[in-house]
Amino acid sequence: MLVRFAGLGLGAATLTTVAAASGNSNVDVLTSSPDVSSFMAEPVTPLSTLVKDKDDMKVKMEMLIMKIQADFCRALENEEDPSKKFIVDRWTRAEGGGGVTCVIQNGKTFEKAGVNVSVVHGILPVNAVRQMKARGKELIGKELPFFAAGISSVIHPSNPHVPTVHFNYRYFEVTQENGEKMWWFGGGTDLTPYYLVEEDVRHFHSTLKNACDQHDAGYYPKFKKWCDEYFLVSHRNECRGVGGIFFDDFEMHSQEDCFKFVKSCAESVIPSYVPLVKKHRNDPYTSAERDWQLLRRGRYVEFNLVYDRGTKFGLYTPGARIESILMSLPVYAKWEYMHSPSDGTPEAKLTEILKNPKEWI
Amino acid sequence: MLVRFAGLGLGAATLTTVAAASGNSNVDVLTSSPDVSSFMAEPVTPLSTLVKDKDDMKVKMEMLIMKIQADFCRALENEEDPSKKFIVDRWTRAEGGGGVTCVIQNGKTFEKAGVNVSVVHGILPVNAVRQMKARGKELIGKELPFFAAGISSVIHPSNPHVPTVHFNYRYFEVTQENGEKMWWFGGGTDLTPYYLVEEDVRHFHSTLKNACDQHDAGYYPKFKKWCDEYFLVSHRNECRGVGGIFFDDFEMHSQEDCFKFVKSCAESVIPSYVPLVKKHRNDPYTSAERDWQLLRRGRYVEFNLVYDRGTKFGLYTPGARIESILMSLPVYAKWEYMHSPSDGTPEAKLTEILKNPKEWI
Repeated sequence: MLVRFAGLGLGAATLTTVAAASGNSNVDVLTSSPDVSSFMAEPVTPLSTLVKDKDDMKVKMEMLIMKIQADFCRALENEEDPSKKFIVDRWTRAEGGGGVTCVIQNGKTFEKAGVNVSVVHGILPVNAVRQMKARGKELIGKELPFFAAGISSVIHPSNPHVPTVHFNYRYFEVTQENGEKMWWFGGGTDLTPYYLVEEDVRHFHSTLKNACDQHDAGYYPKFKKWCDEYFLVSHRNECRGVGGIFFDDFEMHSQEDCFKFVKSCAESVIPSYVPLVKKHRNDPYTSAERDWQLLRRGRYVEFNLVYDRGTKFGLYTPGARIESILMSLPVYAKWEYMHSPSDGTPEAKLTEILKNPKEWI
Repeated sequence: MLVRFAGLGLGAATLTTVAAASGNSNVDVLTSSPDVSSFMAEPVTPLSTLVKDKDDMKVKMEMLIMKIQADFCRALENEEDPSKKFIVDRWTRAEGGGGVTCVIQNGKTFEKAGVNVSVVHGILPVNAVRQMKARGKELIGKELPFFAAGISSVIHPSNPHVPTVHFNYRYFEVTQENGEKMWWFGGGTDLTPYYLVEEDVRHFHSTLKNACDQHDAGYYPKFKKWCDEYFLVSHRNECRGVGGIFFDDFEMHSQEDCFKFVKSCAESVIPSYVPLVKKHRNDPYTSAERDWQLLRRGRYVEFNLVYDRGTKFGLYTPGARIESILMSLPVYAKWEYMHSPSDGTPEAKLTEILKNPKEWI
């Protein structure tokens, strides 16, 4: 076998890759001989297929998300205690496909960091089709052949002054009963701070905006608004965090143009987030601040289990790997009856922003 | 005003009431001058209406659940540090009705104990009607006038050797578009231990069975099975706990007979559960046992937010008091990626039972 798999973190070599990805990388992940040696594990699809069908969007997306996963994991390991590396689980799904789940748990910097790639196919069950129809997707048929490739990640840092980040980029193909194949992309990146540092939020949003602006000046405002609307814990009437970008059913241009946009977004995750980790991971904090972090993580759990479409899609997909879906949940969460921060505190300031999302740039 | 409200716990007087309720109480809560002095707060419905309409099932149910709430809260206070009493929040709902929420948080015995009564009416929104139709209830119309009175409680003890209990008893009236009024009862009591003590589980189930058997020998087996099926965390393929009884759409007899059955069930909560608290609340435990308790509480959160119909109904009902609905969530919960207890441990023994529910009596 020609391909070498890195498995756990690569030390100095990793940092080089990360730096390249953090900048304006022009390296195409697809060449005639795909370089998968830096990936966290062997891709889901056999290497021979990846080579043969290298221009197929299914393959291009798998290669992209495997690379994004590896780059992001190594950028995070760079902020973590050197003895703590991602554990890597490569899994297969009986019904078709599989994935690679990378997790750090109880690290010094990261209480829980999960970065999951899944590349699955098979028959989309009735409930999952219904989920899609419920949000307006017109699909003809009840149980439909599908393909889905996506990367999904949630990072819960230990220090309450480091925000949580989530991102997810995915590509879907569904073949309808009439034989017509539909495809679309979806995704987004969003930030959930426990304490508001406005310049950090501006940095985060600016980085995403720059990625969007390379493709269409209308994307950032549109997808920023969509993000605020989507990540709403509606029973609390508050947003999950300070937003970012979110889009779905993205199919308005050529497949290639859509892919390039998604690629830019996915590549903007490291430069948007990792500097915030670097800046705050050693900030001093009190037990009261830790407590507030846990209460906010309770709200995160509420959103993920009650509203999140990705979670619902996962729970309704037979053979879904539940540990990979629910790795988004924090190690610890807390609920207190009638908790409300005192007026004028940093906690109250955050709550105010969550109830009234604003423009950051 | 003739009526005196107890507010916080009543000390010795409380215990007398509790003892009576724990036995085979024959005291009818409804007399021509309803005795509401022992309730945790003033009932939701004005006293004049409670007197005037005392034979209306809406009133009978409200009086029952107010009494059950008071009896249960005082039975729990009896197991708690004397300085720690239930806080009592009486609230009103702008759209109609209100409730009384009683909570102990961070007690010595009870990390979180919530006992909520709600008596609400108004227009059932489309989403809530859909929830009911989804489970097979045939309702004619889209937005329908409704009345709902129920008691709901979840007790999360501090000590991992004391199980969590949940119960909920409720009465519904819905007026359909054609003017026809439908009514039904629903409810159940179920136990979620962290460590399995078989004789405790047998005591719990036997007490519920005795309550059922007073009405119909077929009820316990039927409702025990329904409970195992309902409290299934299906994405984990494991039950939430060791079951109990559960029923819904209960309307097969006269309204009065149905009410009497529900009353028996509600009155069996204290004798089924409080002895287990008494027995184990001072058991020694290790930090590893505490950890396991928190992991199991994570599963509890998963069930409540993903599957529980009561929670969903609440989240979809406009003006619902979210703090009362979500008081069922524990103070602390924990998630660990790929956690699995080692073979042969008490934790593995519990997991085995949760995956394979059994007959206890």
